Amino acid sequence: MNAPLALGLDLGGTKTAGALITGDGTVLARARAATPAARGARAVLGTIADVVRELLAQAPGPVLGLGLGAAGTIDPASASVVAATDTLPGWTGTRLRPGLSEALHDVAPAAWVGGSPRIEAVNDVHAHGLGEAWLGAAAGAPTALLVAFGTGVGGSFLVDGVPLTGGHHVGGHVGHVPSVQAAGLPCSCGATGHLEAIAAGPALAARYARLGGAAVDTPEVIARAGAGEALASRVVQAAATAAGEGLAGLANALDPHRLVVSGGLADAGPTWWDPVLRAYRAAALPAVRAAVPVKASLGGDAATLGAASLLLRGTPPA
Amino acid sequence: MNAPLALGLDLGGTKTAGALITGDGTVLARARAATPAARGARAVLGTIADVVRELLAQAPGPVLGLGLGAAGTIDPASASVVAATDTLPGWTGTRLRPGLSEALHDVAPAAWVGGSPRIEAVNDVHAHGLGEAWLGAAAGAPTALLVAFGTGVGGSFLVDGVPLTGGHHVGGHVGHVPSVQAAGLPCSCGATGHLEAIAAGPALAARYARLGGAAVDTPEVIARAGAGEALASRVVQAAATAAGEGLAGLANALDPHRLVVSGGLADAGPTWWDPVLRAYRAAALPAVRAAVPVKASLGGDAATLGAASLLLRGTPPA
Repeated sequence: MNAPLALGLDLGGTKTAGALITGDGTVLARARAATPAARGARAVLGTIADVVRELLAQAPGPVLGLGLGAAGTIDPASASVVAATDTLPGWTGTRLRPGLSEALHDVAPAAWVGGSPRIEAVNDVHAHGLGEAWLGAAAGAPTALLVAFGTGVGGSFLVDGVPLTGGHHVGGHVGHVPSVQAAGLPCSCGATGHLEAIAAGPALAARYARLGGAAVDTPEVIARAGAGEALASRVVQAAATAAGEGLAGLANALDPHRLVVSGGLADAGPTWWDPVLRAYRAAALPAVRAAVPVKASLGGDAATLGAASLLLRGTPPA
Repeated sequence: MNAPLALGLDLGGTKTAGALITGDGTVLARARAATPAARGARAVLGTIADVVRELLAQAPGPVLGLGLGAAGTIDPASASVVAATDTLPGWTGTRLRPGLSEALHDVAPAAWVGGSPRIEAVNDVHAHGLGEAWLGAAAGAPTALLVAFGTGVGGSFLVDGVPLTGGHHVGGHVGHVPSVQAAGLPCSCGATGHLEAIAAGPALAARYARLGGAAVDTPEVIARAGAGEALASRVVQAAATAAGEGLAGLANALDPHRLVVSGGLADAGPTWWDPVLRAYRAAALPAVRAAVPVKASLGGDAATLGAASLLLRGTPPA
């Protein structure tokens, strides 16, 4: 079998997912493992290597290498971790090419095209963007902005399918823009008033508890809002309005040909999504109002497809 | 003389400026006229033609054509006006290539390389961005964001020197992003809470008067703030903080290699600029905090140089 094959890996703080992917984006196999985050970078690289070996065992031929979408601030040129949060202690400074080559030293050279793996890396949200731009909701768009509302609020702005990672590799931190609803709220970055402080998933549960609600998780807050509970409705309304106004602001500034929303909240149903769209329409310029945000379409495969695309499509991030 | 020559025109609501420019960006001649805005598109095109004729009379050889940086939403591909505000009544829908060709029909073919002018157009803020990216504060930057704080708040995000004009030609409307300080304030676009509503030049004078100050112009409000007057200081502080936080949000989202600030307020001195930088530093992510905004460097030539660059540099807007 001569069709190109590559591995796409999606490294998060809790799980490491991988897939064996063909040149046309077919997923031939999937694997996953818990990320041993607390045990440090060497253990994390070891788990990635375990997932890689599991996938290689199912490969019908030699594989080009592996693309990694990784939590943290990643320099794609050197495939190194510029910065990371406490979610992955010791991850900052990790050089992924030597680190993964070492962790995979026991793999037979015949497993790889050319005898050794090509290794590419990008931030995990950019990997999501690359996947959606290749085969998902942003396919074919000259410019596209993907915004993920999950544990944090992050994004990827892609021009001709290439994520712009910026002058310091932090491009895409769209959760750190001003939000009227977040006025005075502390953000994970140390500033106040940022979108992420009100619109990230955990922010909903935290705010619900702070305002006198029970200590429940974010899906439960959304369920209570859907059932009409006043406090939960107010919290979800504020978060969704902030999300919609934030999306509109980014759309006004960039006028992306496609605006894609992903992350856990995007799958939470109309209780969150409907007020997002209402706030978006109220804040978007007339010309961009019609180009409403759409939901991401690749689900859990987006990041692994996007990471593998670094090898299969030959469009390195700018 | 064989060096390439082009005309750069900068059409605003009050004045029409033009320059005769060489391939290396030398300004050989300048001309300007009042824009007859109230008299409609035909009169505006006639004034552009007057400025063109004045510049052609000083040209040492045939000219490639003219690049126009124009107020309004411009479709660069068709060089037509997609939308415009009441500042230029009748401007919406103007097709600049036939309109300007008609207005220039009396010019001898020998004035132009090839016997007739090439005509290119772009929004005026993108023209500023093109100029600064060619020869000014953004020169050599892989990505650059220019933000102008003047009559409105607008911008241009350039990738490899090319402004991204977006899916509906409105890319760069960075004044229409959420701002904590603008909460509840009506924006020119019809929404509320946008940066432009608090941080544009006229917003300062309007807010000063609304809060009980005298009916004075914006430079006077800034002068009074500089002299320590409490209300003026409060108004300038809010506007500058909003500007700095807005710039930081855009820098966090895009991580441009260069962040350039232009417009009348950028030239208003430290009373505005210092609190802008303070707010920027407080709201910027650590990695982008060091990459502080810089002021535009080309002054009044930026837009004409940028407009002429459409012909002289061969990088049409995306």
